[in-house]
Amino acid sequence: MYALVCGLLIAFSSYGQERARDYGFTFGVLVPGKWNAITDVTGVKVGHQTLVNGDSVRTGVTAILPHGGNVFQEKVPGAVYVGNGFGKLAGTTQVEELGNIETPIVLTNTLSVAAGIEGVIDYTFSNPENANVRSVNAVVGETNDGYLNDIRGRHVKPADVVTAIQSARSGEVKEGNVGAGTGTICFGFKGGIGTASRKLPTEMGGYTVGVLVQTNFGGVLQVDGLPVGKELGQYAFKNQLESADGSCMIVVATNAPVHARNLKRMAKRAIMGLAKTGGIASNGSGDYVVAFSTAESLRIPYDSNGEERLSMEVINNDYMSGLFLATIEATEEAIINSLFAAETMKGYQGREIERLPVEKVLEIKSGSDR
Amino acid sequence: MYALVCGLLIAFSSYGQERARDYGFTFGVLVPGKWNAITDVTGVKVGHQTLVNGDSVRTGVTAILPHGGNVFQEKVPGAVYVGNGFGKLAGTTQVEELGNIETPIVLTNTLSVAAGIEGVIDYTFSNPENANVRSVNAVVGETNDGYLNDIRGRHVKPADVVTAIQSARSGEVKEGNVGAGTGTICFGFKGGIGTASRKLPTEMGGYTVGVLVQTNFGGVLQVDGLPVGKELGQYAFKNQLESADGSCMIVVATNAPVHARNLKRMAKRAIMGLAKTGGIASNGSGDYVVAFSTAESLRIPYDSNGEERLSMEVINNDYMSGLFLATIEATEEAIINSLFAAETMKGYQGREIERLPVEKVLEIKSGSDR
Amino acid sequence: MYALVCGLLIAFSSYGQERARDYGFTFGVLVPGKWNAITDVTGVKVGHQTLVNGDSVRTGVTAILPHGGNVFQEKVPGAVYVGNGFGKLAGTTQVEELGNIETPIVLTNTLSVAAGIEGVIDYTFSNPENANVRSVNAVVGETNDGYLNDIRGRHVKPADVVTAIQSARSGEVKEGNVGAGTGTICFGFKGGIGTASRKLPTEMGGYTVGVLVQTNFGGVLQVDGLPVGKELGQYAFKNQLESADGSCMIVVATNAPVHARNLKRMAKRAIMGLAKTGGIASNGSGDYVVAFSTAESLRIPYDSNGEERLSMEVINNDYMSGLFLATIEATEEAIINSLFAAETMKGYQGREIERLPVEKVLEIKSGSDR
Amino acid sequence: MYALVCGLLIAFSSYGQERARDYGFTFGVLVPGKWNAITDVTGVKVGHQTLVNGDSVRTGVTAILPHGGNVFQEKVPGAVYVGNGFGKLAGTTQVEELGNIETPIVLTNTLSVAAGIEGVIDYTFSNPENANVRSVNAVVGETNDGYLNDIRGRHVKPADVVTAIQSARSGEVKEGNVGAGTGTICFGFKGGIGTASRKLPTEMGGYTVGVLVQTNFGGVLQVDGLPVGKELGQYAFKNQLESADGSCMIVVATNAPVHARNLKRMAKRAIMGLAKTGGIASNGSGDYVVAFSTAESLRIPYDSNGEERLSMEVINNDYMSGLFLATIEATEEAIINSLFAAETMKGYQGREIERLPVEKVLEIKSGSDR
Repeated sequence: MYALVCGLLIAFSSYGQERARDYGFTFGVLVPGKWNAITDVTGVKVGHQTLVNGDSVRTGVTAILPHGGNVFQEKVPGAVYVGNGFGKLAGTTQVEELGNIETPIVLTNTLSVAAGIEGVIDYTFSNPENANVRSVNAVVGETNDGYLNDIRGRHVKPADVVTAIQSARSGEVKEGNVGAGTGTICFGFKGGIGTASRKLPTEMGGYTVGVLVQTNFGGVLQVDGLPVGKELGQYAFKNQLESADGSCMIVVATNAPVHARNLKRMAKRAIMGLAKTGGIASNGSGDYVVAFSTAESLRIPYDSNGEERLSMEVINNDYMSGLFLATIEATEEAIINSLFAAETMKGYQGREIERLPVEKVLEIKSGSDR
Repeated sequence: MYALVCGLLIAFSSYGQERARDYGFTFGVLVPGKWNAITDVTGVKVGHQTLVNGDSVRTGVTAILPHGGNVFQEKVPGAVYVGNGFGKLAGTTQVEELGNIETPIVLTNTLSVAAGIEGVIDYTFSNPENANVRSVNAVVGETNDGYLNDIRGRHVKPADVVTAIQSARSGEVKEGNVGAGTGTICFGFKGGIGTASRKLPTEMGGYTVGVLVQTNFGGVLQVDGLPVGKELGQYAFKNQLESADGSCMIVVATNAPVHARNLKRMAKRAIMGLAKTGGIASNGSGDYVVAFSTAESLRIPYDSNGEERLSMEVINNDYMSGLFLATIEATEEAIINSLFAAETMKGYQGREIERLPVEKVLEIKSGSDR
Repeated sequence: MYALVCGLLIAFSSYGQERARDYGFTFGVLVPGKWNAITDVTGVKVGHQTLVNGDSVRTGVTAILPHGGNVFQEKVPGAVYVGNGFGKLAGTTQVEELGNIETPIVLTNTLSVAAGIEGVIDYTFSNPENANVRSVNAVVGETNDGYLNDIRGRHVKPADVVTAIQSARSGEVKEGNVGAGTGTICFGFKGGIGTASRKLPTEMGGYTVGVLVQTNFGGVLQVDGLPVGKELGQYAFKNQLESADGSCMIVVATNAPVHARNLKRMAKRAIMGLAKTGGIASNGSGDYVVAFSTAESLRIPYDSNGEERLSMEVINNDYMSGLFLATIEATEEAIINSLFAAETMKGYQGREIERLPVEKVLEIKSGSDR
Repeated sequence: MYALVCGLLIAFSSYGQERARDYGFTFGVLVPGKWNAITDVTGVKVGHQTLVNGDSVRTGVTAILPHGGNVFQEKVPGAVYVGNGFGKLAGTTQVEELGNIETPIVLTNTLSVAAGIEGVIDYTFSNPENANVRSVNAVVGETNDGYLNDIRGRHVKPADVVTAIQSARSGEVKEGNVGAGTGTICFGFKGGIGTASRKLPTEMGGYTVGVLVQTNFGGVLQVDGLPVGKELGQYAFKNQLESADGSCMIVVATNAPVHARNLKRMAKRAIMGLAKTGGIASNGSGDYVVAFSTAESLRIPYDSNGEERLSMEVINNDYMSGLFLATIEATEEAIINSLFAAETMKGYQGREIERLPVEKVLEIKSGSDR
């Protein structure tokens, strides 16, 4: 899909959504994968359930599936990093202790984490292979969409979570006002879901890193280095519209065989990507990163079947830096993508949040000759 | 209430429950408070909602209230320590980040954490003072009662959680097969809720430390140093009945003015008390400690009302050791109390778990002349 | 001191050193303090001992004093954050446990940490007030200057450390190839010591945050958002010259009354500032942040003199975000300042590292119209 | 070597040292290895350098070698756990980040950590294979022997450290007043070095866990559950002699193929063993655990030789609990062994610390019929 924007012929996503890269932003030195999305990591699927009802329901659920099988029976290595912990990410301590993830990762709003957990349990139990399971470590993150959404209404139901999971698919990922990003705000503009990826060159292993974000935070917006927030006069502490508070949920996937300790190190780098967009991880932010590897050789069977040992082939510490850089770049781009895709939204109590004025951003870009 | 047990006239609790101290066990060198319970910390209240229905429902909820007011509006300093993280304690990262607790602490079963969160939100929202609140960091812990309880049935409902909170009271605390301890197992015997306290001598500050536990774990049972598990031939790896797995939730309260950093250090010591009972924090354990201070001078108002600063008077690091010892002793005694109070329980699929054979424990004690 | 550079009349530091701000770079939205240095935090002093001898000694020591008194007797609240832990920062665990710092903070090279510790102990013992002290938690950080310096020669001696401490002063801070920055490399250019500060507006508390860095790391250099590394074709994975490895030591000081928990949160933000320069915290990096508050009301006396309690007035969590932003901005600028001030250095085995081509950076800047 | 003690024919160690097990104490349910020492883990060697000079030097160095080769070139998986961080363990953050240990582990006194680091570097550099090494992460722990030793004299020299390392051997380990334990105090009695081990039954994997401790801490002494401190009237807060402060360094070795994440979990359990002796990890304690695996298949080569991946076969989480129990038991016994072996010591300023009155302990034991 193409459109003429500011004199440029732009290749939109098949959802008709603008993406930063289409305008010439490149965010670093590595190249993206085919979809420039978390789904470039083979096997990863994303599903959204968007709830927009009447004047006040502006929320939803986004689910990320590490692989297409029974994640509970075939767990993936996983890690969590807490950039700033004013948030309610369920599942953290077990992921940290055991180094694995056993459910889809679900994102929703702050007051719907319980619904998220119930939904993940429902989904897990719905698989007859899991008939004897009595403990499920649901990984459910959130940001607070209570400005545009009637969050106290707790409109997300466990069934919405199951729907988001079941509708997950590979390929292109819808961004912006969708799923868990339906009602979120970022740098004072409409935020939402964003995604991006990086593929390392063969000599660096050829691995893919994909990132998906739910953006709902503030700071001093920079777009690929450009001081957009400053030039637009809208940034933290300057402008009441732009509260520095809010949160960002970040999910990092890779097909590189990385175990929990090094996944945690990758997760830490995602916050560095957030920093490059001008985020400051303000006091009120819940900035969390969930990272996992899809490498089949690292799957952890629920039933160890008497096997005392696990064989694994993992990336040496010495070869992790390329994956770090890929994580930083993909996170930065995913966040900016969420802003490019999101559209002006009117919601709860008649409040309205405008989209990023992409044209002005492009003017700033063009003024900077880049 | 008195009874003649093994030739000793024993002063039972007013619930008619046996307590270890009644038989001469002392667990260390410090003395308990009036109730030898977490409620010896002034203002702390405990409520249970016990669900025993038909053949298969053996579960419940226990709520611990840091004070009698609106905890959301008047938060308490708090900390969490993870002994072993195979568990689902909700609220961890925010407590860690902000150093405070803003809800009652709720304990239940593994698959009812979502109901716990919903219940805590319902309770918080039910107070008109909280009408504008859009984010609640529910602290909800759990252990897995799925051997005696139909845990997949998810029989705990948010209303049960609200009931547990609303029924909380000061004074004596019911122990054993009650609330969140209804269906739990400890060292192969029936576990449950237990509590104990220590009051430091005046020259050590005169503070009180109270502990409440939900015991559902294994190891090699020791009762005040006596090798009970070994002598009874029932211990981890010896006996299938006694799986080392399971979990222990521990809540530590103090009226000492201790802020988050030092509360975390106290929380760490609770696991040392667990160790003294023979617990090993096995792979499958979710051993968590939540600690808080009730000191009024340390309350954190939700609405800072433009007050940029918070005045506090806190215990010097140098004076923490007595509180550490008190935490260790109270935790050890609380765990053993849970075993003394619990009674044989028959539940899900006709399974039965016997109570600790107190008489045999007393024989071992008497053989050891202590 | 003034000079005409690229047609601009530039106000150099009194050391004759170029600073990024002199060329119009502003790094964010807050304003610096008087010296744009860590010494803008009243009481903080910085001392350098530079070792440049013969062909192969290119190293040194930089000391940061939290205040002018006996730091051991009057400890300051402190925290450490580990961005990436491939480093040898001494003192970490005690700072973390007790929440305080009791010595000057010393930076040197990787193999001289032991000399650093000895020197700090010597200095502490040299004060007769400390005659009974038997334990000193020296905080000594390092980066590896082994490319330009004969690091295996361990040329730093404890006396050099004492000299650095004793020569510490307020006011302007020398940057670049000085003290612990003498032999370091950053983004493939000559790195070194850099510093910067931010002063919050009165309505945000009016506090000052100062940062000092020892830069020795890599990535994809950005100068105030400009893609300098990319445009110069020198960046990690592109160019062997530019190893992504290395390290960055960051010291953050503030006069705001911030206790250990919130200092750690500030320390975390410093890594976000590093991220904005293009650093990636590569596998081989030792990226550490040491943060402290100089607020007199938060001093912790060594001898508690029987005082069980400590009174403090600290910043509310809710008011921390401005300090976070200040930390990010000052760190970013301090790192770039280290590059602007550093000069081409020839050292060990005839190796040479060139300075940042400031003129080319200014061309890129001017091309971008900013 | 045999002796008649309290009517029992006791098999002393070949050093003529008493060990708790010789008197019938068993500390749990698992059995020790051949030497009941850390050296039961094949390949592990221990060396002591004891410094007893004149009236006031009572200190030394103990070195634990993970294997007999070049540890720098063939690193072992490793982890550190901080029970209480009032201590100066060098090397912590790098072990945590990279999950490996690249030097012998050295224990000494608090003010000699710098000498320890220098010695470890000297030792590492003395091997021509390490000729190009420019970074060494020395793991050096300490406790404070400043009551019996003129600690401010800093009598340990790097050469003493090298001697300790070079004199390390397999087989029996000398305990008590030796090496780093020369001047330490434990529960008010003379402490020192202690060691013990456990060998899991074949059906639990048949692995060995060995522990070595440097005991210098306080609390309320329990010997295999017996309330020795209480009965002797010597315990924390009761008796000035028995300061609760002090520290305990614990080194845990296993031949089980356990990687860093699970080694950290084992390390955490060592503090549970300490708890069972009555230790309370007081405010002034530096209680640290360093754990490593000697499994050859898990060695990490310094030079990855272009190998991007590392193959490993590690123990499943599900099979860790036996190793946890072994760690707890061996730590408990090692601590008590340090007390049984230590002898009354007179030192600095004429101070004297008496040995544990073993006869009285045995009387208490015999009174308890166990």
